[in-house]
Amino acid sequence: MTNTQVTLVQIDNYGPWTVTPEPRREADLQTMQSRLYADISQFVGNRGGYTFFTRFDNMIAVTNGLTMDDHATLQESIGNRYPVTLSLGVATGTSPVQALADATERLQNAGSAQDETRRECLEGRTIDDDYRTADDVQIAHFDVVNVTGNYTDQLNAFDTFIEIEQGYAELMRHMRYAHDSLSFFVGGDNVIVVCPDLEKPDYEEAIAHVDEAVDVQLQVGVGRGESAHDAGYAAKHALETCRADGTRVELED
Amino acid sequence: MTNTQVTLVQIDNYGPWTVTPEPRREADLQTMQSRLYADISQFVGNRGGYTFFTRFDNMIAVTNGLTMDDHATLQESIGNRYPVTLSLGVATGTSPVQALADATERLQNAGSAQDETRRECLEGRTIDDDYRTADDVQIAHFDVVNVTGNYTDQLNAFDTFIEIEQGYAELMRHMRYAHDSLSFFVGGDNVIVVCPDLEKPDYEEAIAHVDEAVDVQLQVGVGRGESAHDAGYAAKHALETCRADGTRVELED
Amino acid sequence: MTNTQVTLVQIDNYGPWTVTPEPRREADLQTMQSRLYADISQFVGNRGGYTFFTRFDNMIAVTNGLTMDDHATLQESIGNRYPVTLSLGVATGTSPVQALADATERLQNAGSAQDETRRECLEGRTIDDDYRTADDVQIAHFDVVNVTGNYTDQLNAFDTFIEIEQGYAELMRHMRYAHDSLSFFVGGDNVIVVCPDLEKPDYEEAIAHVDEAVDVQLQVGVGRGESAHDAGYAAKHALETCRADGTRVELED
Amino acid sequence: MTNTQVTLVQIDNYGPWTVTPEPRREADLQTMQSRLYADISQFVGNRGGYTFFTRFDNMIAVTNGLTMDDHATLQESIGNRYPVTLSLGVATGTSPVQALADATERLQNAGSAQDETRRECLEGRTIDDDYRTADDVQIAHFDVVNVTGNYTDQLNAFDTFIEIEQGYAELMRHMRYAHDSLSFFVGGDNVIVVCPDLEKPDYEEAIAHVDEAVDVQLQVGVGRGESAHDAGYAAKHALETCRADGTRVELED
Repeated sequence: MTNTQVTLVQIDNYGPWTVTPEPRREADLQTMQSRLYADISQFVGNRGGYTFFTRFDNMIAVTNGLTMDDHATLQESIGNRYPVTLSLGVATGTSPVQALADATERLQNAGSAQDETRRECLEGRTIDDDYRTADDVQIAHFDVVNVTGNYTDQLNAFDTFIEIEQGYAELMRHMRYAHDSLSFFVGGDNVIVVCPDLEKPDYEEAIAHVDEAVDVQLQVGVGRGESAHDAGYAAKHALETCRADGTRVELED
Repeated sequence: MTNTQVTLVQIDNYGPWTVTPEPRREADLQTMQSRLYADISQFVGNRGGYTFFTRFDNMIAVTNGLTMDDHATLQESIGNRYPVTLSLGVATGTSPVQALADATERLQNAGSAQDETRRECLEGRTIDDDYRTADDVQIAHFDVVNVTGNYTDQLNAFDTFIEIEQGYAELMRHMRYAHDSLSFFVGGDNVIVVCPDLEKPDYEEAIAHVDEAVDVQLQVGVGRGESAHDAGYAAKHALETCRADGTRVELED
Repeated sequence: MTNTQVTLVQIDNYGPWTVTPEPRREADLQTMQSRLYADISQFVGNRGGYTFFTRFDNMIAVTNGLTMDDHATLQESIGNRYPVTLSLGVATGTSPVQALADATERLQNAGSAQDETRRECLEGRTIDDDYRTADDVQIAHFDVVNVTGNYTDQLNAFDTFIEIEQGYAELMRHMRYAHDSLSFFVGGDNVIVVCPDLEKPDYEEAIAHVDEAVDVQLQVGVGRGESAHDAGYAAKHALETCRADGTRVELED
Repeated sequence: MTNTQVTLVQIDNYGPWTVTPEPRREADLQTMQSRLYADISQFVGNRGGYTFFTRFDNMIAVTNGLTMDDHATLQESIGNRYPVTLSLGVATGTSPVQALADATERLQNAGSAQDETRRECLEGRTIDDDYRTADDVQIAHFDVVNVTGNYTDQLNAFDTFIEIEQGYAELMRHMRYAHDSLSFFVGGDNVIVVCPDLEKPDYEEAIAHVDEAVDVQLQVGVGRGESAHDAGYAAKHALETCRADGTRVELED
């Protein structure tokens, strides 16, 4: 049984900030956002978690292993080094979608994302160390079969990107509504999915669905672990097996 | 008449590097990728260009105003500071899609993205200063009407993200095939589109198409300029007018 | 009784790398070094430690609270994201100078700093959680009395810097040979000193010595704690008392 | 005849900011400072300039080749991405010390470094392109003879650092008062000196002086150029000749 700890990271009042007093230079916003994400990814990542950039102004992290104190340190550190601040909502559950819904609700209850008086909220609770298990997190790591040979070296860079995007858009929607899972594009042709307890046929079904809907061929490695890193690392190894053996779904035990 | 200068930025042999000798820690890859992007965005951006993260291993930039020497300095600087290197293909043209196709072809001719002997290619040519004009770049800046009130403060963070993604996926495909334009998600609910010479009815048609296809309501500001920054800054101002006046398409002259 | 845990961070074979195959662009080296330092400072700092940039190719950290596993994660993370790698030597003791000497010796025994086969060494041991106490670390935070009024707003920027440097050079030498302490310039007019069990008269003596030797007037706040952050934070508060009350030495209990 | 363009970079009202409302986490300050420096170093560096971290709250740059517009872009970009802002003073002259004094005076005239109403000043003027020559900048790059064999692999890391610091402190003072030059420690055992028109005997004298005063043996490569990068790159090559041939002073023509 999975027990995913999900953190919603929201930049406080970001939209208004980007245009006050005048619209800010786009390249500066892009730089600031991606560095902010990188810093959060490092902080969470070297404690065993995964952070996804998502919309950049709203990021989603799997934070099994991080305490509320860790979250507070992250919040303080970003506040000391950036021109913006973060609010954090944390929740846990067997369904990643439900956990994220709970985390979101905690922040929404504290105020609007564009309420200028809502700053540096820290809401929710984490899993006590005593209750953590080796099955808490299930991660599936998808990529596109032979993307370099079939796309990157054949199509122009944008058309390749369109193909990958269509595959991702279809997969994210399907995994969310059919399998209660959260899917995130992580660069290249890679999509990482945070799942509840799914089995091999679920993944086979998802791959078949995407193939049929948008004609993109995916393969997937799946791992379980106490943390996102443990589960995700097992998933990466399983995906290497797909690549080596030409299989489409591999679960690392 | 637009004359967009497009640069394809490709990390050399990146896929194999990420799994050699063992798969690398995902959080480190995410951090490295987003900082690499941030550095390129700064370099290009403080010379008036725009860089889009796209797939991260393949980034696309609008580089009007940058010389081949500037590109070489960027390439050298990244090579000195990162564990990976970049290849750059540059091309220009009235159609952003065609310019990107040419830039892509120049790199493909130099070797596969996963050819380990193809490193730090720099191919193509830029627009001479004497030929640059105030109409060279057309940028459209789209966002979702009242995204905070309609989505962020209502749905869970992932379902909001799905809605934005569907709008983006539909817009990117439509703008590419109907209008020869390159669309990029840039965070929040913002999509920046690099366009050829389009007119107000083209944008109205695109907004209507997305509304009908996936029920996402967009608004757009459009600007022209000698560089991506000039055009994009005008587009941001035009979008502010949409927000203030409740209009859906504004062109800044 | 203090028990300082000191880590020597050494970039492997850095000197030769900076000139191979040709000397690398100085601005790139400066950027890379300072970002590498910043990353280590964040990693160590958000676990309660302090890192000092020192020579940049050799950095010194106070790491009470970090395990050997933490050190290994840092080493792996830097290796994944930079073109250089780190070796780490760790040691503990009542004298910070002796602890650093032991940490240094462990790395020297593993090979020369410019031995190209010595890469990513991790040597030494940390303090078990059970043996950590609230007196393990003593930090003194010095600055120059009224530096803005007396120097920054009066002299040219370099002459101010010379004055601060002379004060620092004298303090570092005196604290090392008279008080077994490690002193680090941390920007502005601030020097942070890692001390064994010193008392108020020791600090008064040091301030008088620097005043007499190079005519620079210092004040100091001193704190104790389980970690560098705890001790250093108390020291900062004590220094605020100096600034408010015009005293020269304050110890926070 | 040299004509050095010097920029003083001052963080506005930094000291008070670091302790308001409470002292900020030291590791965050260190991280923020060093990244701010890194960003400035990149911006200036990829336009041919050199930036020195100096005190971090006051940095000194050699900016031949940068226009006032470039300075304004830097200032805007930092203001968009950091919690602090910069004031910049620019001046030029045959003596680097005098140029820095003029740049400093321009900022001092605009207000105190701790005046909270003085923000984002940009004062001074740059050298017109038509007046730039290949002799404008003279850079000397010093290091310690066989530092790894004599120090790093022999002494503990702090005692090595003390030796290097004493050499640096003596050199900086001597070069400033005897030779109107600005000396900056840049990591490892490297000191970069921005000089007026000096000749070989001047450098021989300086090396002999430091040897006699503090028993540290230095070698130096000297270069001239239109920009700091050109001059500094020639100096690095000249220093490689010292290392290869065992000479102590080399000038690259």
